Amino acid sequence: MYSFKNDYSEGAHPNILHALLKHNTTQEEGYGDDRHTKNAIAVLRTLLGDKSADVHLLAGGTQTNLIAISSFLRPHEACITVSSGHIATHETGAIEATGHKLLTVSSPNGKLSPELIEPVLAEHHFEHMVKPRLVYISNPTELGTVYDRSELETLHKYCQGKNLLIYMDGARLGAVLTCKAAQLSLADIYRLTDAFFLGATKNGALLGEALIIQNPDLQKDVRYLIKQRGGLLAKGRVLGIQFEELFSNKLYFELAEHANNMAQHLVTELKGVGCGFWIESPTNQIFPIIDNRVIEELSKTFEFYIWAKIDTEHSVIRLVTSWATPITAVTEFVDVYINALQASR
Amino acid sequence: MYSFKNDYSEGAHPNILHALLKHNTTQEEGYGDDRHTKNAIAVLRTLLGDKSADVHLLAGGTQTNLIAISSFLRPHEACITVSSGHIATHETGAIEATGHKLLTVSSPNGKLSPELIEPVLAEHHFEHMVKPRLVYISNPTELGTVYDRSELETLHKYCQGKNLLIYMDGARLGAVLTCKAAQLSLADIYRLTDAFFLGATKNGALLGEALIIQNPDLQKDVRYLIKQRGGLLAKGRVLGIQFEELFSNKLYFELAEHANNMAQHLVTELKGVGCGFWIESPTNQIFPIIDNRVIEELSKTFEFYIWAKIDTEHSVIRLVTSWATPITAVTEFVDVYINALQASR
Amino acid sequence: MYSFKNDYSEGAHPNILHALLKHNTTQEEGYGDDRHTKNAIAVLRTLLGDKSADVHLLAGGTQTNLIAISSFLRPHEACITVSSGHIATHETGAIEATGHKLLTVSSPNGKLSPELIEPVLAEHHFEHMVKPRLVYISNPTELGTVYDRSELETLHKYCQGKNLLIYMDGARLGAVLTCKAAQLSLADIYRLTDAFFLGATKNGALLGEALIIQNPDLQKDVRYLIKQRGGLLAKGRVLGIQFEELFSNKLYFELAEHANNMAQHLVTELKGVGCGFWIESPTNQIFPIIDNRVIEELSKTFEFYIWAKIDTEHSVIRLVTSWATPITAVTEFVDVYINALQASR
Amino acid sequence: MYSFKNDYSEGAHPNILHALLKHNTTQEEGYGDDRHTKNAIAVLRTLLGDKSADVHLLAGGTQTNLIAISSFLRPHEACITVSSGHIATHETGAIEATGHKLLTVSSPNGKLSPELIEPVLAEHHFEHMVKPRLVYISNPTELGTVYDRSELETLHKYCQGKNLLIYMDGARLGAVLTCKAAQLSLADIYRLTDAFFLGATKNGALLGEALIIQNPDLQKDVRYLIKQRGGLLAKGRVLGIQFEELFSNKLYFELAEHANNMAQHLVTELKGVGCGFWIESPTNQIFPIIDNRVIEELSKTFEFYIWAKIDTEHSVIRLVTSWATPITAVTEFVDVYINALQASR
Repeated sequence: MYSFKNDYSEGAHPNILHALLKHNTTQEEGYGDDRHTKNAIAVLRTLLGDKSADVHLLAGGTQTNLIAISSFLRPHEACITVSSGHIATHETGAIEATGHKLLTVSSPNGKLSPELIEPVLAEHHFEHMVKPRLVYISNPTELGTVYDRSELETLHKYCQGKNLLIYMDGARLGAVLTCKAAQLSLADIYRLTDAFFLGATKNGALLGEALIIQNPDLQKDVRYLIKQRGGLLAKGRVLGIQFEELFSNKLYFELAEHANNMAQHLVTELKGVGCGFWIESPTNQIFPIIDNRVIEELSKTFEFYIWAKIDTEHSVIRLVTSWATPITAVTEFVDVYINALQASR
Repeated sequence: MYSFKNDYSEGAHPNILHALLKHNTTQEEGYGDDRHTKNAIAVLRTLLGDKSADVHLLAGGTQTNLIAISSFLRPHEACITVSSGHIATHETGAIEATGHKLLTVSSPNGKLSPELIEPVLAEHHFEHMVKPRLVYISNPTELGTVYDRSELETLHKYCQGKNLLIYMDGARLGAVLTCKAAQLSLADIYRLTDAFFLGATKNGALLGEALIIQNPDLQKDVRYLIKQRGGLLAKGRVLGIQFEELFSNKLYFELAEHANNMAQHLVTELKGVGCGFWIESPTNQIFPIIDNRVIEELSKTFEFYIWAKIDTEHSVIRLVTSWATPITAVTEFVDVYINALQASR
Repeated sequence: MYSFKNDYSEGAHPNILHALLKHNTTQEEGYGDDRHTKNAIAVLRTLLGDKSADVHLLAGGTQTNLIAISSFLRPHEACITVSSGHIATHETGAIEATGHKLLTVSSPNGKLSPELIEPVLAEHHFEHMVKPRLVYISNPTELGTVYDRSELETLHKYCQGKNLLIYMDGARLGAVLTCKAAQLSLADIYRLTDAFFLGATKNGALLGEALIIQNPDLQKDVRYLIKQRGGLLAKGRVLGIQFEELFSNKLYFELAEHANNMAQHLVTELKGVGCGFWIESPTNQIFPIIDNRVIEELSKTFEFYIWAKIDTEHSVIRLVTSWATPITAVTEFVDVYINALQASR
Repeated sequence: MYSFKNDYSEGAHPNILHALLKHNTTQEEGYGDDRHTKNAIAVLRTLLGDKSADVHLLAGGTQTNLIAISSFLRPHEACITVSSGHIATHETGAIEATGHKLLTVSSPNGKLSPELIEPVLAEHHFEHMVKPRLVYISNPTELGTVYDRSELETLHKYCQGKNLLIYMDGARLGAVLTCKAAQLSLADIYRLTDAFFLGATKNGALLGEALIIQNPDLQKDVRYLIKQRGGLLAKGRVLGIQFEELFSNKLYFELAEHANNMAQHLVTELKGVGCGFWIESPTNQIFPIIDNRVIEELSKTFEFYIWAKIDTEHSVIRLVTSWATPITAVTEFVDVYINALQASR
């Protein structure tokens, strides 16, 4: 059984484990003051184009979201998010647990826009309601779609005009940075957000997300919040070495590009034999619409999530590829699909 | 420069890294549903003597404390702790950030007792004050002292009679489990607490603490809390493999015993040349009282914290040994001490 | 200018102020241990049909909601509410500020039902999502509609089967208790909810809401929560005397009935001259659909909120009557309406 | 039985109730937008010497403390207070419930000073500990002692130099404003604090505290916090009318002066017959040390709290006088004391 359920089924890219072994016996300072973390931050700063960028290495996405958002907001301030946003669905109310309401907006493609934000601002106009203050976006979204440079510039300009902060959840940001249509570099994302995080757990690390804060007003005392929320690892080197390895050369980008390529190979092949898609995604999460009998057949060899029901005979499945997905798994999936499709007719 | 500052200066025991490498490419379920986590829990259950013990693997001590305590208490309920307790000093108000007050008690040896708890209960008798509900103890304490079996039995019996929960912070629990004077096994600790955690970060793992909940009333829905507070790692295997490696054979205990031995070797040698100690500690944290000129000399070769000032000429330093401390570092420290002492006379 | 904006524009029913004066100089215990509070609770217990009912007098609705809900839930548990529910809209995120997510459901008539709750339960099935635990309903709803006895019985039975708590916001509960179609007594509501509050601020008191908890599992230590959230008045007598006055005779019910009658008189008269209504409401909040030119004319003599836009020429307004609304204000409103309507044709 | 237990045993000064009656039937805007609240604020602004001072009328002291402090602080910031401070003892962990740690300091006279604050700042120097940010003082203190103008100036200057906010709990501030030794006017207190509250519940109102914020950085959006924490009364007029009545003439000051005079009369008379005092208090809370047999005799006619045990034969009692204390109660107390004292010899 090969699993397309997610992009965190394997361990880490071998280079990372070898780097952990290589530096294992050297004594280092704790809590992120080690040489590897400092070096990883220096490397990221170069990519961000700001030698004094505020960068913090953390263990997971929910942790990063809750630390960042609860650090940035006063108690009555709220986040605007699409209703499919990760903080709104699969973080067990982590943001509300820090005291902040989420204001959700429906969006078929999983993306926010000024048009979707405007009515929220209009409705929340006085002290009997929370005050919208932070715009949460995921890039890529939970549906695999992407905010490209132009969309992000529009959103950024709008938010600046409305005194709204933009915070980007980049759990799978590698998929955007290596998606040509997006035309977004790390430096672009840094410039067009107040803060974002750059995920490594889903792109080859054992664990690790880099929280990056561009807005100087939000940079103060963030390490206090990290410690208070349980996010400061005693052996910060574990994160430092991984980011060092991923970004000192181009490994992070190569891994993300591979994941995208595997997914897009699936898209091309499946479309080639007539398969439709629920949504167009240029990244490593794709959503084909498949006959239920074919799904049953595929399930004998592959693991994946059934995402939505289309009609009595068809469902959407989610396939996620990763840095570790072998091309053989992709071609085998297509083969099984084709055979099952023919058998079902 | 060799550092005696703490027991998390190195990476992990090599066996752990090799295990991570060995299992690296196998696909596993996420979020702690992997085979390694399941196996590690099974192994721990055997040691605890309860085949259905509630065990959760987490990333760090502050994280574990805040998740456990905020899961166990209602909003008006408070923790009793010594004022030197880790939650009261070095967790940046993590427990208060979840809404709960700490009621602190001074204790020269860092330990709580019924005699110290009783006045707190007497004082907090009505709804204008918080309700004491949980007794937080660290074992070993932040001063390196140990609750032995008899003390823990006394405390446990007292707490049961007063409807108080006992929660034990075991960030360095290995040091207790391998301290003969303590006479405490994992099964004993399980029986004598409502919940505790078993730390691995400070005993040879990259990161990892096992939260173990014996009281059935406290077991419900803990995974929800772990997720909500950002403590559920996508690649739970990272924790599972480490605990599997530490506990499937006796590695955890061997590492802790080594750390204790190195510290006690220091104690014996230093006492042998007339050095006094601030507090008697049988574990891997020791607190010699040293002439300031000798401290200055030691600082040229070793790193350690100056813990307290005794008089104008003497200070207490803290030395922490670990699973990775070589005997050569210990003997060299003693040599430098003796030489510096003679030079200072 | 006469205001139909709300039911808290005047002070208190004169009997209440006279009672405050009458008992003013007697010394009483503080914090709700005074004789008036005790007597008020005894009177309410008789009406509830339970001599040991758990009753707490509080100052306001938002305060009561946040104290009750944060007392009843563990951190990962959530409330289900219609999206027009008061806690979801006009309480500035008070529930989220205590750490709990709201799960909102659209409902045209402002009411919840098993059919609306079922999909929420189906969706929230694992620890990556909050756990639905409490069903929040307002009776009457924010749209003036009412849950009648049969609907409440159905909902209660459903919730019991699903291990859900029912909590009722009764800020305007008098309007239900005196609405014949509802067929609900205080004893019925007590029996069919886990907890509810009985509002007096909007029915003739200066301030005051009675939180009533039927479910024994929820009764423990509620006074601690009240104190902790700032809800325990030093001069509890202020609330005690008011509830004593409202419930020792039938004043509370008479005042609510008057408010309903004034609103329903408006409904009858306006319908009689062809006015349509946005929603059918049998209580003291009504929502006529009126020509914008007529609204403009009415605005010269009356204050009220414009609630929604129907089309380019018509809007919904909200009219709220109260215990203090004189019949003359009602008849004058109808007169102005009729005149303006004729003028607009 | 006459009670000296506290200063909130009676209702309100009659002028206040008459004012409530007088304005009762007029319709007013809700939530503090009524004319009385606006007028009361205008009157207070004149006394504060700042026509744009930020003033909010609230219902109780704990409520005011928790709203103010949670509005002013970020999550990792903490309050410094004496260990006898009201927020540290008798508010059921209200501040911690909003997420903030209290850092307590022992002080025999219940007052803070730069000397007591300095070690707290020295100790809390890095992100593993909370960050001290707000200095909470009560004036008068919980022991009846007073910060005079000079002490407040010293503290204010110190705090400004250390980037600490000063917040003053003025639940009994009238006792300071009318204590000649204090030499503090409302305008002085406004100038020498970042924020404070001016209590009326304990000085003749049914309920009511005015939160006054001088520091412009702290003024933003406070009404949101008030609403979110359940502190915004629908009938804000109830508070507005009371403050209007207390401050439009000198009623507030007359009532406080009377309370002080009654207490100081007790002090003079008791000292005159040899009674010692636990602490020197110039305000309306006094702490005589009395023979236990005399206390028993006094208890037959008077209610009061036994505050502390001095030795096997003597205890401290707390006597609180108020705006409503008649001189006859005072003289009778002294008579009973003298008689009991003679009988006990």
